[in-house]
Amino acid sequence: MDDNLIFGRNAVTELLKSGRSVNKILIAEGSRDGSIQRIFSLAKTAGVVVEFTSRDKLDKICGGRHQGVAAMAAAANYSTLEEILELAESKNELPFIILLDELEDPQNFGAILRTAEAVGVHGVIIPKRRSVQLNATVFKTSAGAAEYVKVAQVTNVAQTLKNLRGRDIKIVGSDMSAETDFNRADLSGGIVLIIGSEGKGMRRLTRENCDLLIKIPMVGKINSLNASVAGAVLMYEIFSQRQRK
Amino acid sequence: MDDNLIFGRNAVTELLKSGRSVNKILIAEGSRDGSIQRIFSLAKTAGVVVEFTSRDKLDKICGGRHQGVAAMAAAANYSTLEEILELAESKNELPFIILLDELEDPQNFGAILRTAEAVGVHGVIIPKRRSVQLNATVFKTSAGAAEYVKVAQVTNVAQTLKNLRGRDIKIVGSDMSAETDFNRADLSGGIVLIIGSEGKGMRRLTRENCDLLIKIPMVGKINSLNASVAGAVLMYEIFSQRQRK
Repeated sequence: MDDNLIFGRNAVTELLKSGRSVNKILIAEGSRDGSIQRIFSLAKTAGVVVEFTSRDKLDKICGGRHQGVAAMAAAANYSTLEEILELAESKNELPFIILLDELEDPQNFGAILRTAEAVGVHGVIIPKRRSVQLNATVFKTSAGAAEYVKVAQVTNVAQTLKNLRGRDIKIVGSDMSAETDFNRADLSGGIVLIIGSEGKGMRRLTRENCDLLIKIPMVGKINSLNASVAGAVLMYEIFSQRQRK
Repeated sequence: MDDNLIFGRNAVTELLKSGRSVNKILIAEGSRDGSIQRIFSLAKTAGVVVEFTSRDKLDKICGGRHQGVAAMAAAANYSTLEEILELAESKNELPFIILLDELEDPQNFGAILRTAEAVGVHGVIIPKRRSVQLNATVFKTSAGAAEYVKVAQVTNVAQTLKNLRGRDIKIVGSDMSAETDFNRADLSGGIVLIIGSEGKGMRRLTRENCDLLIKIPMVGKINSLNASVAGAVLMYEIFSQRQRK
């Protein structure tokens, strides 16, 4: 599947609204309801070519639930860490950054971007290697938030964390074995929240670079949360503490 | 896909550990690593038939990421509302119940069950009609939590809410247009938290039966959260407030 293929009604709508360059919109013949018509007129306004095609062809191209519409976008726009820090500064806010330490699942990545956008995260850092990257599934699961949240790729996570600490940003890792409950920790101020991979959590070297380890308490038998759910619970705690200040 | 087909390593492991009746386990030929061997020995201990089959056949049966193992379970066990209330009483806890008002997506249902299990929810109520039901995708996404959390089907949501209010249980609905932020509301005591459908939120009649409406604040451009993420943020706030008492 082409990494620049975006499908689903919300995702394509947000893509068009975001101003990112779009090469072509594909609409399934016979799709006539309101949201498709809205996409059609957004595309016309933006001067994007619209092509009508069979539902079968869309099924084949998307290999998933396209809801009658797909878009061929220009390549994903990655930002730099500097741009993320500049965004915080331009808003006169202390940095609020998420670092995904070798996350693998595009659905989790997309869901995390969606929550990150809602709580005003300035940017998300991912490693260049052994990590999920921005692709169509990420975009769709993010409900379009992937267009608005800055994502930076870094080659060396440990080095990046050291740089950030030098700028008075607190490095906070989530870890099942931590002693401090997330809602009893001081999460105000500039912060990088690290979310580990689905199976293995944070890497050792990443953990060693944390200023603070926090856990989400659990009382059940299974005792593990989905990575995007854990991320959301932590992001909302940080957001609440920032709002209170 | 058969509703009683369960696949994926975590899901099948939890199924076997739960004691629910299992008709057969299917393992892909050549799968030999630790978690598969553990499933094999759990199945043997439980006296469950194990059949080895080709990976192609598993692909065809599961239509998804089975990780080399599937199980044919007996029909899903639904509980009654009375059983949910009795569970709370037997633990000497005030009821903590989730009601899903016409939720449609099995992945959201599974993710909500996973979080519900982690925070000690006594049970989840779903409408019998126009709602996602317990099936293989729900089970897999729940990472096995669907085996542990009681799920009750009700024919009339509004009537059920009236009954619960008579028992001194607070009915709390989450709604984008509510005035009260979730973390400024009193969510202690017996509670039913209502999560609406992905697209439309709560139905009018459900909303009218709420004692309290709360919202999750958002500061982005998209301003919507995934239903399972919203559910998790709210469940953890309720859990925190209960822990504090």
